[in-house]
Amino acid sequence: MNVLWVFAHPEPRSLSGALRDDGLRTLRELGHDVRESDLYAMKWNPVVDARDEVNPDILAEQEKLEWADTVVVQFPLWWYGMPAILKGWFDRVFVKGFGYGVFAEDGRTLRYGEGRLAGKRAMVVLTAGAREPAMGPRGVNGTLDEVLWPLHHGTLFYAGMSVLPPVPVYGANRVSDTQFAAARSHLRRRLGTLETTEPIPFRTQNGGDYDDDLVLRPDRSPGATGLAVHLRQAG
Amino acid sequence: MNVLWVFAHPEPRSLSGALRDDGLRTLRELGHDVRESDLYAMKWNPVVDARDEVNPDILAEQEKLEWADTVVVQFPLWWYGMPAILKGWFDRVFVKGFGYGVFAEDGRTLRYGEGRLAGKRAMVVLTAGAREPAMGPRGVNGTLDEVLWPLHHGTLFYAGMSVLPPVPVYGANRVSDTQFAAARSHLRRRLGTLETTEPIPFRTQNGGDYDDDLVLRPDRSPGATGLAVHLRQAG
Repeated sequence: MNVLWVFAHPEPRSLSGALRDDGLRTLRELGHDVRESDLYAMKWNPVVDARDEVNPDILAEQEKLEWADTVVVQFPLWWYGMPAILKGWFDRVFVKGFGYGVFAEDGRTLRYGEGRLAGKRAMVVLTAGAREPAMGPRGVNGTLDEVLWPLHHGTLFYAGMSVLPPVPVYGANRVSDTQFAAARSHLRRRLGTLETTEPIPFRTQNGGDYDDDLVLRPDRSPGATGLAVHLRQAG
Repeated sequence: MNVLWVFAHPEPRSLSGALRDDGLRTLRELGHDVRESDLYAMKWNPVVDARDEVNPDILAEQEKLEWADTVVVQFPLWWYGMPAILKGWFDRVFVKGFGYGVFAEDGRTLRYGEGRLAGKRAMVVLTAGAREPAMGPRGVNGTLDEVLWPLHHGTLFYAGMSVLPPVPVYGANRVSDTQFAAARSHLRRRLGTLETTEPIPFRTQNGGDYDDDLVLRPDRSPGATGLAVHLRQAG
């Protein structure tokens, strides 16, 4: 399988860098082909210019995405989101006709489960300063799934990708050797099951669950609100 | 009142630019003192460098924030979030000791309603391509409040600010003259009530609603999950 690893941490000699190094090694040992976009090392320009849709740096990233079967997106969680350099990778690479503005022959917009990147998988690996309870149900941060909603649903799934459950490392500012070993093992296990892990069951836009205004039909998760209504129900 | 307007759109001759121009004029007519951070015009560098905490461009923005009573943050919603140039304004300006890592004399961390920016107000003004139903209850995007959670709660409120309800312009890719006039009027009304509008009633971290793990106590919004549990209940 072809795996693209997108990495957005300023310091290669960090916990994040160590996990990235181990992850790339693990993927190669598993027999995958691996490419990397190390955004800080590439000095990636994250600022959209109104006229830069065909810049070579963008085309190179699009080519990597076309090549990839699975994309790993790794970053430290800053202010409940991606570092700007990574947000600007999506802002600039996911241009109209590639990340959005993709249409079927019948005129339907292909997004939320369909689109140019359909068939590919994505998985977020992140380090967070918060401890796990603070990002669990009723934690002050909101749950990890809620915090990652803009990336998971609004970006990766929007562009067509199947999104695997994320791999978080909590309390990342104070990780002991034991905790690091556990995080590394966890990541290795998840990299070993990239092809078989069930994606997050987001409802597709064109699968019948939403009406023409893109509002969930009343008989789906009836009466409920909150982001979880956009998950297909089991059973 | 002192108002800082942070603007992050690449094209001044845009719907966003027109709203910004009218908003600044309105604030001056109301007798407020106004300063602006037009991030594209300033060629703001959004990329955190591990060693740049004291750069003059960061200190200048911190000084503006210290000066301001209210901060307006205006941007087009890209991929359910801020343009990278704006995300990187928060990443770089809200450094440790300013935006986070602020402590009381008794050692408590001051955040989520307390901190260096406590007492100030913030209001988001945004343009979104999505139409309103798609960002309402059960809309495919998630609600506007859910999409803005990382900025509203995870950034502005985290740093201590009181967050006013946002001013959205939906369907911003195809706005008629009539719709523009309505958006401008709406923004003017909201700017006229900056000092009196009730903030979003996020629960404070240290107000007794959360336990020592920062998990909401069982008797608050009992049994409930979803981001709305972090709002104080009326009555």
